[in-house]
Amino acid sequence: MKKPRVLIIGGGFGGYFCAKHLRKICRGTVELEIISEINYFVFQPLLPEVAAGTLNPQDAVTPLRTLLKGVKVRLASVQSIDTEAKQVVLIQGQKRILQRLDYDHLVIATGQVTNLSMFPGFEDHSLTMKNLSDAFRLRNHIIECLEVADVTKFKELKQRYLTFVVAGGGFSGVETIGEMLEMIERILPQYPNISLDEIRAVLVQRGKTILPEMSAELGDYARKKLEQRGVEVLTETAIQSATRYAVCICDRNSEQQQSIPARTIVTTIGNGPSEFVKNLPIELERGKIAVDANMRVKGLNNIWAVGDSALTPVTCKKTGEQSFAPPTAQFAAQAAKQLAKNIHNSLNGKPLTLFCYQSKGMLASLGGYRGVAELYGMRFTGLFAWIIWRGLYIGMLPGFTTRLRVALNWFFDYFMPRTIVYMGEPPTTATHFAYFSKGDCIHHANEIPQAFYVVVEGELKQLLEQDGQLIERTLKPGDSWGSRALKESRLTTGEVIAAEKSKLLIMKSEDFTRLRGVYNPLDQQLESQDR
Amino acid sequence: MKKPRVLIIGGGFGGYFCAKHLRKICRGTVELEIISEINYFVFQPLLPEVAAGTLNPQDAVTPLRTLLKGVKVRLASVQSIDTEAKQVVLIQGQKRILQRLDYDHLVIATGQVTNLSMFPGFEDHSLTMKNLSDAFRLRNHIIECLEVADVTKFKELKQRYLTFVVAGGGFSGVETIGEMLEMIERILPQYPNISLDEIRAVLVQRGKTILPEMSAELGDYARKKLEQRGVEVLTETAIQSATRYAVCICDRNSEQQQSIPARTIVTTIGNGPSEFVKNLPIELERGKIAVDANMRVKGLNNIWAVGDSALTPVTCKKTGEQSFAPPTAQFAAQAAKQLAKNIHNSLNGKPLTLFCYQSKGMLASLGGYRGVAELYGMRFTGLFAWIIWRGLYIGMLPGFTTRLRVALNWFFDYFMPRTIVYMGEPPTTATHFAYFSKGDCIHHANEIPQAFYVVVEGELKQLLEQDGQLIERTLKPGDSWGSRALKESRLTTGEVIAAEKSKLLIMKSEDFTRLRGVYNPLDQQLESQDR
Repeated sequence: MKKPRVLIIGGGFGGYFCAKHLRKICRGTVELEIISEINYFVFQPLLPEVAAGTLNPQDAVTPLRTLLKGVKVRLASVQSIDTEAKQVVLIQGQKRILQRLDYDHLVIATGQVTNLSMFPGFEDHSLTMKNLSDAFRLRNHIIECLEVADVTKFKELKQRYLTFVVAGGGFSGVETIGEMLEMIERILPQYPNISLDEIRAVLVQRGKTILPEMSAELGDYARKKLEQRGVEVLTETAIQSATRYAVCICDRNSEQQQSIPARTIVTTIGNGPSEFVKNLPIELERGKIAVDANMRVKGLNNIWAVGDSALTPVTCKKTGEQSFAPPTAQFAAQAAKQLAKNIHNSLNGKPLTLFCYQSKGMLASLGGYRGVAELYGMRFTGLFAWIIWRGLYIGMLPGFTTRLRVALNWFFDYFMPRTIVYMGEPPTTATHFAYFSKGDCIHHANEIPQAFYVVVEGELKQLLEQDGQLIERTLKPGDSWGSRALKESRLTTGEVIAAEKSKLLIMKSEDFTRLRGVYNPLDQQLESQDR
Repeated sequence: MKKPRVLIIGGGFGGYFCAKHLRKICRGTVELEIISEINYFVFQPLLPEVAAGTLNPQDAVTPLRTLLKGVKVRLASVQSIDTEAKQVVLIQGQKRILQRLDYDHLVIATGQVTNLSMFPGFEDHSLTMKNLSDAFRLRNHIIECLEVADVTKFKELKQRYLTFVVAGGGFSGVETIGEMLEMIERILPQYPNISLDEIRAVLVQRGKTILPEMSAELGDYARKKLEQRGVEVLTETAIQSATRYAVCICDRNSEQQQSIPARTIVTTIGNGPSEFVKNLPIELERGKIAVDANMRVKGLNNIWAVGDSALTPVTCKKTGEQSFAPPTAQFAAQAAKQLAKNIHNSLNGKPLTLFCYQSKGMLASLGGYRGVAELYGMRFTGLFAWIIWRGLYIGMLPGFTTRLRVALNWFFDYFMPRTIVYMGEPPTTATHFAYFSKGDCIHHANEIPQAFYVVVEGELKQLLEQDGQLIERTLKPGDSWGSRALKESRLTTGEVIAAEKSKLLIMKSEDFTRLRGVYNPLDQQLESQDR
């Protein structure tokens, strides 16, 4: 008999822990596959330390293949779900043809994405702290700011490059500003023309206290500690918009607006559903996938959802109270464990169980060897809380080598200077030239359109379907294609083959669509050409 | 009295060692400044180990500020030299206005750049191994190939993704293929659907032997060792062209051409002068700056050149024979030391000295704990040579912490699995939106044009000089500017100020120029608009 196939989309806390527990419970009786757009598991609480250069980026995360031996790991991007055919549709690698994978049970654990559309300019001018690349980019960005500020002769520009604004006073925001400041304090001696009092760090929080998930006492302690180190903590303040040069904030009591010139804006707020989740043939509630108390997607028998992308009902273990799980790693990991049991039971015709849980506590690092912790009702602050933070987190990291690597990073960071190697993004271009030999297929039929193509040299044949008939078109230097498929965002109909050695200019769809969208003459030209 | 200012352009072997020795000899009597486009010193022989994931990228290099305390370090890009005014012209940071720096003595140590224009397709389809980003990109590229090959169902595609071609059988090429193979061997157990015999590694060398700088005996040993590990070593073979899918090579004896389908092509050959050096008001010989035997640029009293960008005459210590220094780190470092003495002597009116040197030897690692070495006339192979290689190179690394970091990386790499974390390049776009407040200056007068701008929302004022008169133009949504300055590659004449809150689409100059260059309708539109 063919083993049932369980497909998991997403390798974060929900997806990874679900795969891990399923592998354990089912012991080879199911075929397990995890699909992820990144090939590693990120323990998000460590990202601020990557941004501060304490941890090497590759050391702070663990490859999914290493963690999930026996589970098939696929680096791919899921486009949609065909619930009728019980298949997911995905693309992987360079060949952007839609491929289909069967499933018997499907777990959606894709998390949320940052959505800053309500704050004009934030999408384009602020950095986020969602994944490893974000953290690594922030680290390099800080170094770049200091490099420029150290040598510039423009006073105003210097002040702007030395101003760091973090939006959001939750765990991520507080840890980010704390660690960032620690990094700056440590590397500043290498920048002889900058003094510490020229550094301006601002934490903007909408609510009355920072770390609102913890008790007010701990929030106040965190605020005091950050302020002692020079951070301006602005509570009851809303972010409004950002420009290339400044961030605009508003005091929520006085409604007074203020513009802070800043080169660095880090945003830790604004989560929303991804395009993938929005387009699912599935009911959403509050922007999340609606699931029943067993974590089954409402109305579907073999699709489940867990983690931040789902609105998971939870029953408090102690009080029996019913609520929804907060979007934290702790809940996602526990819910995933329960979900694994439920899938196993469902496969074996056994009854499902509700998700019951109670938070064990919360921890935050403030940088500079200080932290706050709330565990099983007890509260800790200062160095002791910071030590608990490190101890517990290293215990929670998956994989022995990752634990060892992180511990070694921490150990050596204590003794060694933090490096200021600036690894800025390489100057990549979005357009590129591509060469093809005679007979090469440039574009498959039914490929997802991904670019606008212009012939530079050579000759190509394009097969087009018109009124049900296949016609052939010859493309010569100066000819272009792709604009129509991009505009109508549909699959391409015909393939393009190089009739001889050819050179093309390829412009990525996103850029092309943007340019066409705002630059009228180009749009008009293409309209007439595509008619 | 004002201290004389010595400006050094470039932070590689030539520039770094010159700064280091000048600081030591001059002991505070000169003002030293080093200008570099990257803020760290790269020990190139370690790059293949970064590409193979043995070394963390940040650990393999050393920040210039850390190495050169007391020397001013400026992260900037030098545009030109004004020998009359004794100034260099540079840009730094976001503000792309030309700035000028005075010098009394100037050292040009900018190295060479990769020039692959004689091999069609190579610039666009091959990876290089020049700097840290290149090495890190190759590492991620290898992992990406294995990820795709492990899950694809297309046989042909799998074979292509598992084929790795390295062009160039010198030190860099041999070490790169050796280390790359070691990495693949070590991480392959994590890819259950790929077996080692599906991996195809090809080394293409134009000459008769690999490692031609060493004795034929050692070259043969290296070849044998690589072949034992499965590398196809193709000597007397020339690379010709590359496409997206394959590399075309040619046997130089039979003149037979062959096309090897490959996803990965690494090029370690093809050096040439940079645009900066080409545009200098200085005589070039064989694409390099012509200097006299004292390393002074011919015809100029206070400009010196060292390293790969210069054609440095060298006198053999032993035989007295005169030749030109080969483009190796060893010679650059030694020449830089001599140059520092000459600058010091020149400042103090003392006679200059010729550059005399004899190579101490050469080393190469072959991966898999094997190496070849030639030191003071003695030859070593195998594990012993590999140990010498590691020992000598760690001794030659600058900075104590870098040595310690590299040693620790090596130590732990021996015991711990190599991580397969895939850190692909962030999806860069050629276009981006930018927001501005009323009064913000978007574009300064005399700024280097860097983009094509389209107004999306708001209104802007542009000041233009026409026939000697300043005229003001209002820019509204849909209006654009920048194309003319880009086309004529001249400084912009007037500034652009936001008259109200505005949103712009900004398209990077290089991408815009490419699109305009090949897509006629756009060019025609812009021509008529700019008239």
